[in-house]
Amino acid sequence: MLTLQLLLVTIEADFVGIKLGILGLGTVGTGTVQLLSDTTGRHPLLEEIEIYRLGVRSLTKLREVSLPEGVLTTDLEAIVSDPQVDIVVELLGGLEPARSLILKAIAAGKHIVTANKAVISRFGDEIFTAANQAGVYVMIEAAVGGGIPVIQPLKQSLSVNRIHTVTGIVNGTTNYILTRMQTEGSSFDDVLADAQRLGYAEADPTADVDGLDAGDKIAILASLAFGGRIHLEQVYCEGIRQVSKTDIAYAEKLGFVIKLLAIAQRHTISAPLSVRVHPTLVPKAHPLASINGVYNAILVEGEPIGQVMFFGPGAGAGATASAVSSDILALVAALKASTAKPNPLLTCRHQDYSQIAPIEELVTRFYARFLTKDQPGVIGKLGTCFGKYGVSLESVVQTGFHGELAEIVVVTHDVREGDFRQALAEISSLESIDSIPSLLRVL
Amino acid sequence: MLTLQLLLVTIEADFVGIKLGILGLGTVGTGTVQLLSDTTGRHPLLEEIEIYRLGVRSLTKLREVSLPEGVLTTDLEAIVSDPQVDIVVELLGGLEPARSLILKAIAAGKHIVTANKAVISRFGDEIFTAANQAGVYVMIEAAVGGGIPVIQPLKQSLSVNRIHTVTGIVNGTTNYILTRMQTEGSSFDDVLADAQRLGYAEADPTADVDGLDAGDKIAILASLAFGGRIHLEQVYCEGIRQVSKTDIAYAEKLGFVIKLLAIAQRHTISAPLSVRVHPTLVPKAHPLASINGVYNAILVEGEPIGQVMFFGPGAGAGATASAVSSDILALVAALKASTAKPNPLLTCRHQDYSQIAPIEELVTRFYARFLTKDQPGVIGKLGTCFGKYGVSLESVVQTGFHGELAEIVVVTHDVREGDFRQALAEISSLESIDSIPSLLRVL
Repeated sequence: MLTLQLLLVTIEADFVGIKLGILGLGTVGTGTVQLLSDTTGRHPLLEEIEIYRLGVRSLTKLREVSLPEGVLTTDLEAIVSDPQVDIVVELLGGLEPARSLILKAIAAGKHIVTANKAVISRFGDEIFTAANQAGVYVMIEAAVGGGIPVIQPLKQSLSVNRIHTVTGIVNGTTNYILTRMQTEGSSFDDVLADAQRLGYAEADPTADVDGLDAGDKIAILASLAFGGRIHLEQVYCEGIRQVSKTDIAYAEKLGFVIKLLAIAQRHTISAPLSVRVHPTLVPKAHPLASINGVYNAILVEGEPIGQVMFFGPGAGAGATASAVSSDILALVAALKASTAKPNPLLTCRHQDYSQIAPIEELVTRFYARFLTKDQPGVIGKLGTCFGKYGVSLESVVQTGFHGELAEIVVVTHDVREGDFRQALAEISSLESIDSIPSLLRVL
Repeated sequence: MLTLQLLLVTIEADFVGIKLGILGLGTVGTGTVQLLSDTTGRHPLLEEIEIYRLGVRSLTKLREVSLPEGVLTTDLEAIVSDPQVDIVVELLGGLEPARSLILKAIAAGKHIVTANKAVISRFGDEIFTAANQAGVYVMIEAAVGGGIPVIQPLKQSLSVNRIHTVTGIVNGTTNYILTRMQTEGSSFDDVLADAQRLGYAEADPTADVDGLDAGDKIAILASLAFGGRIHLEQVYCEGIRQVSKTDIAYAEKLGFVIKLLAIAQRHTISAPLSVRVHPTLVPKAHPLASINGVYNAILVEGEPIGQVMFFGPGAGAGATASAVSSDILALVAALKASTAKPNPLLTCRHQDYSQIAPIEELVTRFYARFLTKDQPGVIGKLGTCFGKYGVSLESVVQTGFHGELAEIVVVTHDVREGDFRQALAEISSLESIDSIPSLLRVL
């Protein structure tokens, strides 16, 4: 009798249990293992998940989590081809071997959960095409916005809308730096150095401060919001290195804060997309203006919903583990309902690439700061030059002097970026213009 | 050849098409019909949905939408039992006949989409029990937060967390009134009258201003966040009628704004819940403090995610139609994947009632305003009385005079509400105390 019961329990566990092969036990891996190993008070379906294999580089390294013997292995290739594994959870980061392992896992019929924005934004085409052919799911909630549920709403609930615009603060490091520059009046270099000391910025901060990380993320969000793949090299990326405390102070006076925004926009259904990352003057009353520190926020605008915004921690072990686990949960639920037919809201529904407009075609407001030699006549000359290229000005502020030079700040009305650049080229050749130290876009 | 093709097309359409029976063509019904009738640029699955029947009170009333002949009917009972109907979309509002029609539809094997917070918060037990028995889904995204996707994240992605607290601004009318009182320094009665004139408040504003609508919504959110049904009569509801412009001004000086918050909280997994609605002093730096006007926001706190917030339009035809349509889309996707087994993330997973602590057991900070006759000795007497009941004070402000009376405002540290009430009862019997015109909780 006892034997039979035990046997039934084993069969039941075999039947319902979903076996994970996790790749990587860094910060996010450790957080994910901790969450999945301690399920009380969480969704009961999590109890049906087994961490079956966990691939690491070294078996001897001290770990914050303890796992049953035989789970840890250094043979990552064996995990992605193990017939017992149902879902491969890729938490290695970086391009290789992450990309190859994901592709091998797909070829072996595994479903994929990944937090890897770099791989998805670069190799999404290859990965989703392979996944559709193999009939497996690829889940990427943790790739953008840390713990904030934004991928799933974009794929599911918000997709009944015609999305116009997705605007995100999606890089915590740069938002932290800009927030401190704003509140302390400090320079970029000083705050960056301190952020590196405190662990909020990497030793090599390029991916963050040059907008590349945000570029990966907005490429992913744009592909979901507008249903077309994105060539990453067509995403315009401008970082925050050139944002000065002078500009932050002027922006403040004019009623703006400066944020690194990642924007994807489509004015009409047939128009090319605008997908871009750049420091932006944001009106203080705008919902994104008050998102400070390492927090992320994503504002989605569409018809008929209007504006919705998602706000939360953009990184960190716990937040990212929440997103990774939510993807695992969604797969377990979908597989319980059907292993025969996919749920179309969890699969990737597009295959074509979206057309992306070059940055010269962008129509936006601009903020520009000029240092001029000869103050009295210079505003007239600026005005003439702007008029020639169809640039109209919303405000002109003449403020201080820098030695012999006067400082003039202008905010334009909407203008085509290419036209504005032509006007600036002509202005910079004027004898009375010393330099144009700042040029920023205005939301 | 042509005949065969047509036949195949017909079969295919029969096979994939999902037929809706919509009940009600008011604001939300009209918005939903408009969305579903104009699918270009939206999720392609929406094209597989057919508005098969639409139940209205009058066939002769002029409508903003045009429907094929035979779709409109006044026979709502026939819709919910029609064998052709797959999903019944209940947009009637009110308790009856909405509740009966939902139950009949469930009994006839229909899946349900409803925006009806009043029915779900009162009869959720009956409805979800019937739905689980019948093996159908009941979807309620539009019942809370208008267009904001919050029900689905709570049921799905966020459910991997141990939720501690859900705090919402979930009633647009009261948030509009409080925002105007704050910015204009106006009184409740004046702003309410103007809001009624402008259509932001109902002629009978009771459900909104007395916190009952918010109570319905927090009961629903609490049941999802904590996995247990809620007895609505155990939800403490206090509205905003007694919030005075004096208190808003004092709160402002102390660094707070006053918001009508709906809160559901659980300190430990085994502790009873606290579920309540009341005007609350919110610190200005808190994410909910800057949610103004008719907007809604829901802040979810849990382990390990930390804080995430959802923000958007809390009402309106377009926003609510987006939420209703997203539920329909989720059902179409789930039914395409499997009609045999339910997706466990879309079903209701709890059957038991949660234990709810009485408001006396709440531990919170308080704001209280006293009018006193005899200023010099009175603070000492207040202090003695507070000390006797374990109330410690965070700040005491003596401000103005009202004729012969002095005004004293205190903010306490955390204290058990029952103890604080006892202290106040004793204080109000003191000879030097004229009255205690205001008592508010502090976040």
